[in-house]
Amino acid sequence: MAAQSLNHIRIVLVEPAGALNVGSIARIMKNMGLERLYLVNPRCDHLGGEAQRMAVHAKDLLQKAIVAPSLTAALTDCQKVIATTARPRHIETTMEEPRDCLPWLLADQRQGAVIFGREDHGLSNEELDCAQRFLTIPINPDYPSLNLAQAVTVCAYELRQIARGKTISAAAPMAPALPEENLASFQNLEGYFQHLEEMLLKVGYLQPHTAAKKMSKFRRLYHRAQLREEDVALLRGILRQVEWTIAEDKS
Amino acid sequence: MAAQSLNHIRIVLVEPAGALNVGSIARIMKNMGLERLYLVNPRCDHLGGEAQRMAVHAKDLLQKAIVAPSLTAALTDCQKVIATTARPRHIETTMEEPRDCLPWLLADQRQGAVIFGREDHGLSNEELDCAQRFLTIPINPDYPSLNLAQAVTVCAYELRQIARGKTISAAAPMAPALPEENLASFQNLEGYFQHLEEMLLKVGYLQPHTAAKKMSKFRRLYHRAQLREEDVALLRGILRQVEWTIAEDKS
Repeated sequence: MAAQSLNHIRIVLVEPAGALNVGSIARIMKNMGLERLYLVNPRCDHLGGEAQRMAVHAKDLLQKAIVAPSLTAALTDCQKVIATTARPRHIETTMEEPRDCLPWLLADQRQGAVIFGREDHGLSNEELDCAQRFLTIPINPDYPSLNLAQAVTVCAYELRQIARGKTISAAAPMAPALPEENLASFQNLEGYFQHLEEMLLKVGYLQPHTAAKKMSKFRRLYHRAQLREEDVALLRGILRQVEWTIAEDKS
Repeated sequence: MAAQSLNHIRIVLVEPAGALNVGSIARIMKNMGLERLYLVNPRCDHLGGEAQRMAVHAKDLLQKAIVAPSLTAALTDCQKVIATTARPRHIETTMEEPRDCLPWLLADQRQGAVIFGREDHGLSNEELDCAQRFLTIPINPDYPSLNLAQAVTVCAYELRQIARGKTISAAAPMAPALPEENLASFQNLEGYFQHLEEMLLKVGYLQPHTAAKKMSKFRRLYHRAQLREEDVALLRGILRQVEWTIAEDKS
């Protein structure tokens, strides 16, 4: 049986520090049929000898890896973003296991991303806010610290199994329960969040020093709604009208 | 849910040559709740610096690893043995995927083993003959050469999922479900929608004759987000602040 393509899915590593890890990750990605590696501000030489040695026959993935200056830059054209994280510390949201959330990326061919954090301290709250869903690999609670390359291995393996149709039971078709067409792009969602923040600062609902924390609640709320382009347009329409009303009252 | 114990299952590496691999394997074993590592004629120093560094907090598994002079010695007291191998070359037997054969090891508490071959040329025919079942990790046929530590990662991960009773994937929900206890009551949701409608009429975003149609879009959008009581409170806070700003500008 031919596996479904995984070409629309990118693996995004945020500030990876270990060249050995990056090389291993290129190798397992190629093993599992994943081709698109994004490196956000890498802190190691992904084209150097150590990475190349671990990549073995996947050196081409390292060569064509895209280096991005920020996580948002790496996600610009994505519509589905999953962040990986250990058990929740500060974010109040639903954590999902690989088999429960990764099939979402294969329900269609929209650009999707799985984000992995730094070897030493994972993803920041702000980075977590870029994701609509949160993946945690269920492991031994007595030793929950997973190596980066091994975390990618588990996810890449699961993605391949899903692509081969191996996780979907006949009783549970992949038909999305929610509207999938026209899902808003990451860029447009970001545009909305920034616009919302500006308006909320303007009306005094947000204070500059606490804005980020409150905004992350709104981000999660709207991410849960899986906004489509037309939803974003509706919501931005409200912002524009409120701003216009305020401006007119002032004039 | 407590995971079933994996203490009766050993991971057997035949002549591993990479200390980095052995260290990584100790780490992922501990992550997944596996404790018993057997090394058959290791060709690297599993107690040396490289292995220790990769093991991080799983150095104890390296310390208590059992070094055996032959594969048969490592398997003496085993009753269930699975050998891992790439796609069959010379053996004529059924190859099984991890999810199909690993549950067998957890069906009871009999001593079981999963054997992994050398980094460069796997297991010999004679070694394969020690096993009752044969596991192959389904990967990209264009690049089927899997790193040893990553092969162990996949199997250790699958063993843990089986131990947790997770072998059969449940339906993959398209949106993460939130804990139901905090879900906003119908009454409070209605209160929010009415408040939103009032504000949107006030700022001229809605016109009375088309308000109902537009509001139903917002209702569906917010229903998808599965609002909790605290989300409703946040959203109403925005409405109040916008109204207050408009009223003040007018006064």
